[in-house]
Amino acid sequence: MTPTASTAPHNGVVELLAALAYGELTGFARLAGDSELAPTTAARAGLGRLAAREFRHYEALEQRLRELGADPQEAMAPFVDAIDAFHRRTAPGSWAERLVNAYVGDGLAMDLYREASDFVGEAERPLMHRVLQSEGKAEFVQQELRKVLDADPAAAGRLSLWGRRLMGEAMSQAQQLAAVHPELVALLVPGDDLVELSRMFTRLAEAHTERMSRLGLTA
Amino acid sequence: MTPTASTAPHNGVVELLAALAYGELTGFARLAGDSELAPTTAARAGLGRLAAREFRHYEALEQRLRELGADPQEAMAPFVDAIDAFHRRTAPGSWAERLVNAYVGDGLAMDLYREASDFVGEAERPLMHRVLQSEGKAEFVQQELRKVLDADPAAAGRLSLWGRRLMGEAMSQAQQLAAVHPELVALLVPGDDLVELSRMFTRLAEAHTERMSRLGLTA
Repeated sequence: MTPTASTAPHNGVVELLAALAYGELTGFARLAGDSELAPTTAARAGLGRLAAREFRHYEALEQRLRELGADPQEAMAPFVDAIDAFHRRTAPGSWAERLVNAYVGDGLAMDLYREASDFVGEAERPLMHRVLQSEGKAEFVQQELRKVLDADPAAAGRLSLWGRRLMGEAMSQAQQLAAVHPELVALLVPGDDLVELSRMFTRLAEAHTERMSRLGLTA
Repeated sequence: MTPTASTAPHNGVVELLAALAYGELTGFARLAGDSELAPTTAARAGLGRLAAREFRHYEALEQRLRELGADPQEAMAPFVDAIDAFHRRTAPGSWAERLVNAYVGDGLAMDLYREASDFVGEAERPLMHRVLQSEGKAEFVQQELRKVLDADPAAAGRLSLWGRRLMGEAMSQAQQLAAVHPELVALLVPGDDLVELSRMFTRLAEAHTERMSRLGLTA
């Protein structure tokens, strides 16, 4: 065990890192698998690059879990059902939907890291910041989405609805996780307050709306 | 253009790097996508790690193509149909078949890099060796395959057949590529000799047989 492990971290920290880790691992598989259906090899490589980045995040989180004395597989287990359900319920049906998944998912993940970095202790902050610094690589997804919308402006309505569905599914699974993981909530929300938890979800929804409108989509 | 580009590489070099690049890019997507179906999160992470490694190889090859003054997307285009056809015709139907795909595919790729490193010029050798040095990470796949075979020895016959099918499809697509890319053949085979080409395929088949037998499978 490393010296860090002996500081006996708040259990919520292990839960948070494990939930993020499983999210990155499954997001990686989803993005990389979807890259097979990209219309060009350039787009395929672009999506692959995003996926590879998610796998690097996963590896960093897995390593941190080990440093904290946790077994990564055991720690991730409680989050498998909810996160798998999210992916199952949001399998994209077209290249444009795939791009929206990547855009919304990446943005939401970054918001979550940002929220978390405010509440985790000093020990976890470098990892959160390292992930946040790799932000902005989703520009490729924005550019591809703009191409789709320029070529077919009528797609905006359909993709707006799709984005809303993604966000709804994410919030629904997050609420379920919050209900059964009070330690995680206690970490993210001062005073373990349901009102504060709602406020956090509101902030995430606002950021999502803002992101969608940047592409001329409604949320 | 970089100084390297001005050395006007043998066209076969660009073709070789492009074929390897497209193979890595699609192998990556296939492996990562398949990781969704792993029986445990540990196996999922293991397959993901292999996939991420293939993406790093892709990025190294892409960068080298640019250094040589080639457009990676244009250079890969002639190989898309054959390599996509290979993947389409070898989509695994079970976790065990997925593992065999990874095992056979990784071994074959490494053999190809080794063959190529004997024939490419000094300029390309460091890249080939860099890829070859990352070999051996497929141990995870071997271990998982051994688990499958220990739990179900009767699977050996079926998986042997599957391995033969994979190798047959790979050789078939390679023969087709060889027929339409004489510059690539000229690079890999001294004197552009059909007999030498056959000998190379024989060496690849022998190495495959040896690899399969290491797992108690026949080829």
